[in-house]
Amino acid sequence: MLNRLRSYIPMLDWGRDYNRTAFQNDMIAAVIVTIMLIPQSLAYALLAGLPPEAGLYASILPIILYAIFGTSRALAVGPVAVVSLMTAAAVGQVAEQGTAGYAVAALTLAVLSGGILLAMGLLKLGFLANFLSHPVIAGFITASGVLIAVSQLKHILGVEAHGHSLPEMLSTLVGNIPDVNPITLVIGVTATGFLFWVRKGLKPFLIARGMKPRAADITQKAGPVAAVVVTTLAVWGLDLAGRGVAIVGEVPQSLPPFTMPGLSLDLVSALFIPALLISIIGFVESISVAQTLAAKKRQRIDPDQELIGLGAANIGAGFTGGYPVTGGFARSVVNFDAGAETPAAGAFTAMGLAFAALALTPLIFFLPKATLAATIIVAVLSLVDFSILTKTWTYAKADFVAVAATILLTLGLGVEAGVSAGVILSIGLHLYKTSKPHVAEVGLVPGTQHFRNILRHKVETHPEVVTLRIDESLYFANARFLEDLVQDRVTADSPVKHVVLMCSAVNEIDMSALESLEAVNERLRSMDVKLHMSEVKGPVTDRLKRSHFLDELTGEVFLSQYDAWRALTGAKPDPALRAAQ
Amino acid sequence: MLNRLRSYIPMLDWGRDYNRTAFQNDMIAAVIVTIMLIPQSLAYALLAGLPPEAGLYASILPIILYAIFGTSRALAVGPVAVVSLMTAAAVGQVAEQGTAGYAVAALTLAVLSGGILLAMGLLKLGFLANFLSHPVIAGFITASGVLIAVSQLKHILGVEAHGHSLPEMLSTLVGNIPDVNPITLVIGVTATGFLFWVRKGLKPFLIARGMKPRAADITQKAGPVAAVVVTTLAVWGLDLAGRGVAIVGEVPQSLPPFTMPGLSLDLVSALFIPALLISIIGFVESISVAQTLAAKKRQRIDPDQELIGLGAANIGAGFTGGYPVTGGFARSVVNFDAGAETPAAGAFTAMGLAFAALALTPLIFFLPKATLAATIIVAVLSLVDFSILTKTWTYAKADFVAVAATILLTLGLGVEAGVSAGVILSIGLHLYKTSKPHVAEVGLVPGTQHFRNILRHKVETHPEVVTLRIDESLYFANARFLEDLVQDRVTADSPVKHVVLMCSAVNEIDMSALESLEAVNERLRSMDVKLHMSEVKGPVTDRLKRSHFLDELTGEVFLSQYDAWRALTGAKPDPALRAAQ
Repeated sequence: MLNRLRSYIPMLDWGRDYNRTAFQNDMIAAVIVTIMLIPQSLAYALLAGLPPEAGLYASILPIILYAIFGTSRALAVGPVAVVSLMTAAAVGQVAEQGTAGYAVAALTLAVLSGGILLAMGLLKLGFLANFLSHPVIAGFITASGVLIAVSQLKHILGVEAHGHSLPEMLSTLVGNIPDVNPITLVIGVTATGFLFWVRKGLKPFLIARGMKPRAADITQKAGPVAAVVVTTLAVWGLDLAGRGVAIVGEVPQSLPPFTMPGLSLDLVSALFIPALLISIIGFVESISVAQTLAAKKRQRIDPDQELIGLGAANIGAGFTGGYPVTGGFARSVVNFDAGAETPAAGAFTAMGLAFAALALTPLIFFLPKATLAATIIVAVLSLVDFSILTKTWTYAKADFVAVAATILLTLGLGVEAGVSAGVILSIGLHLYKTSKPHVAEVGLVPGTQHFRNILRHKVETHPEVVTLRIDESLYFANARFLEDLVQDRVTADSPVKHVVLMCSAVNEIDMSALESLEAVNERLRSMDVKLHMSEVKGPVTDRLKRSHFLDELTGEVFLSQYDAWRALTGAKPDPALRAAQ
Repeated sequence: MLNRLRSYIPMLDWGRDYNRTAFQNDMIAAVIVTIMLIPQSLAYALLAGLPPEAGLYASILPIILYAIFGTSRALAVGPVAVVSLMTAAAVGQVAEQGTAGYAVAALTLAVLSGGILLAMGLLKLGFLANFLSHPVIAGFITASGVLIAVSQLKHILGVEAHGHSLPEMLSTLVGNIPDVNPITLVIGVTATGFLFWVRKGLKPFLIARGMKPRAADITQKAGPVAAVVVTTLAVWGLDLAGRGVAIVGEVPQSLPPFTMPGLSLDLVSALFIPALLISIIGFVESISVAQTLAAKKRQRIDPDQELIGLGAANIGAGFTGGYPVTGGFARSVVNFDAGAETPAAGAFTAMGLAFAALALTPLIFFLPKATLAATIIVAVLSLVDFSILTKTWTYAKADFVAVAATILLTLGLGVEAGVSAGVILSIGLHLYKTSKPHVAEVGLVPGTQHFRNILRHKVETHPEVVTLRIDESLYFANARFLEDLVQDRVTADSPVKHVVLMCSAVNEIDMSALESLEAVNERLRSMDVKLHMSEVKGPVTDRLKRSHFLDELTGEVFLSQYDAWRALTGAKPDPALRAAQ
């Protein structure tokens, strides 16, 4: 019973061995992550179109729930860039930004997404994440990074802009160029430049001046906080808010409130597909990070339990004023590098953020939105990597097509169209490839038992025996192909008496393919040609025995292709080989 | 140039050799098919919710267009049961039956469907039809047959009923049982019984009485005409229309009129998905029939050209008062059996039907709808065959699941939900199966060069060498599986020094799988374990060479698994085998 419970609540597992060393390490990691998360959470809330406190709230209860139910020891759950962008796109379709309905819809989206993740976890559907190919994910993340960066330009310029795709954003942005606020622009550009320098140049700079690498690392993490403090003080001291610089303004001083998501049928059905896409993307991002980090310490991640952990976190976000969350790359890596040993580090981070929500929010009244936008831009540009296009172009054109379509559609039509197209294209191209499988006519390599492609090797053949090696499982998408193939190769006037299907690479024969084999068998029978099979795998044979096919087969099933060759051509066995068997 | 044209207009091919014998044979076939088609066309129009003449019109120009552009010599194109039902379901969503809008929407559906088919043909997308697995098609046709038969009960009972799913139809039907018209019921039941007897018992009955089989066959085909004539005369003579028997009524006496489909954006977007489904189902039905018949005469069917032929036929139907059409099973088989040699038989059939539309329509004024319903019921019940459930249950559970879901959803929610679910489930289950591929750890069969599963055979192994035979192509859906597998098998404390991936059944390694292999390679490197590959196929090797993977691989790529075994275990070659190589 306890073991059963433990499998659903991993905390019962690591909690037993928790000790003072682990506590200290977790505590240090929590402080570093908290410092990094405060500006990031505010910024991502802005990206999602929500008030800044929503970002903090989304980082508190979700972290704790994930610590209880999740299996990764280092994953840090909370708002992330891509999911924030997808939230903005989804919620923007049902409500106006800044209205109460908008915030309520974001809660609904979180609860829906949590419910979907939880259901997938309980149904053990973690494998569904595999249906997104790596290149499609890479393309989607890159395109999203570009979209996010462009979406923040309005805050840097201090103008209005709308839309969820590149053309929409750019056209409204360009139209508003005359309204640019120069002071905002100075703050935004300076903050962006400063943060880029912090990311690239600060650490070497400090180490060159004698600071220890670890201290330099922590200082670097605090860079965004410095930008926040300096620009906030500047706006306050110089009264820049009065001169048109957009500021965060009043943020309630409170722990995460209990909030009720909207659950009307209209809202739920409008948000269901976006919630599904957010769940899948969030899960894929999270599990990639979790597995990368777990591999470094030889720990295991259970994908189905991860779904449950993320599901609980999202449901938690939906009831405490947040919005959809997932395991983030940057925050998790920082957590891991800072030495977090158990999910308790996450819980301590949550406490730090709760303290911030309760005590520090008055201090960010004068924080300029341009600074938050700079934080986002610098963070997401590290996600942008178009090299996946050249990599896939040289390696596999099918993957290239899927990636290019994903990137173009994400930029051109938005995140939902992009990721849907990526999934559909990945699957469609895979099916297309397997629907026209590679088939080789093979012959015997003289003096061996090996058979090779007659077009590539010098091999023995026999005019009455055609051997076709099928390099693919036979299933509905290529069943017809097989029929056409045999029909093309064996015409009424050919001297062929035996067709052998060499099945060493056939891992499955489904019902459609079985019917095609029956059709081939019948067609060859009417031409007095026998159909044989060789090297059929154990599981495939087991299944064929459950049908009538083997009774109706005009020829035989040979264990090895060499047996088939000997029996059908009457070739004498090679004495050396005979001795060896 | 002429050859190019000929490839798009197959008529230019068979037209050259057309002679008197072919003409006579085609003519006889046309007469038989025409007699059969007149009641059938009227009946299917009724099923589609359209006035009876629409069924005739849909059989005239489409047949001629198919004769010009199609590749099958015996396929008869026109209204068919399943497509008529799908038309009713689709058009019923945008217009009320009996209104002008309803007929216009049916025209739009035909043109849209034709456009989709034509585009697929020109883009050579005929392979898409393969994505419907045979069992799913069988399940869908069976469930549709049940739906169609039930939908006709209202005409047999003489009551009202609505709906496009079994529960809807049955509940409205049962509610209206008190209104049953007894005379209609008598006509309907008698006609149904008579037609069943004609189908099953008439031919043996006539042959037993000395009629020649061929004459008996033709007489049987005329059975529905007899039912039409007798019941029409009965209604007219006994004035049954005045006593509540629903009749066909006035049918315009005309050749197919020129009609303009509605092309408003609203209508087109509402009908696009249904048109797509109708195109796919229609194409699959048609191509199956065409290929079955072509195989009997060793002719070839070109799927892409078939798409063009069917596309032209549907566009023709849309402009001449028809509705979506396709190659029908029953009418094509009759055409073939009656001796049709070329598509000219279709053209002659079209002339016969045109004559009927022009001259015979006044004669069917008193034709009771119950007789037409009886025609449909007897025709579609031959489509119903639930044995696909038991067949798939014994052969492959995955196919069974897809079939059962298709049948349940078609009956419960209607044709569109059913066929969509069938396609999605077929693909999903296939991906699921390949996402958890069969992998065997193998060892050397003593005295041979063969390697077999260590769990099934007595084989030689070596503590430092693990050989995994992967029985599936490696692609995004199972890329992660490979990583987990190696991680499970090779732990830090095992004595393993070499992992060999035996790739004899790996037909593809896509970009996602390549990244997984790189990850496996890195992980093993950190544990001082070398990764090797063996029996990698030519096309896979070619592709791997285009990446950096082979440079980074810690181990080697061996041509044969036996080479790998000898090199890694230091085993001496078997002298007998040595001699053989």
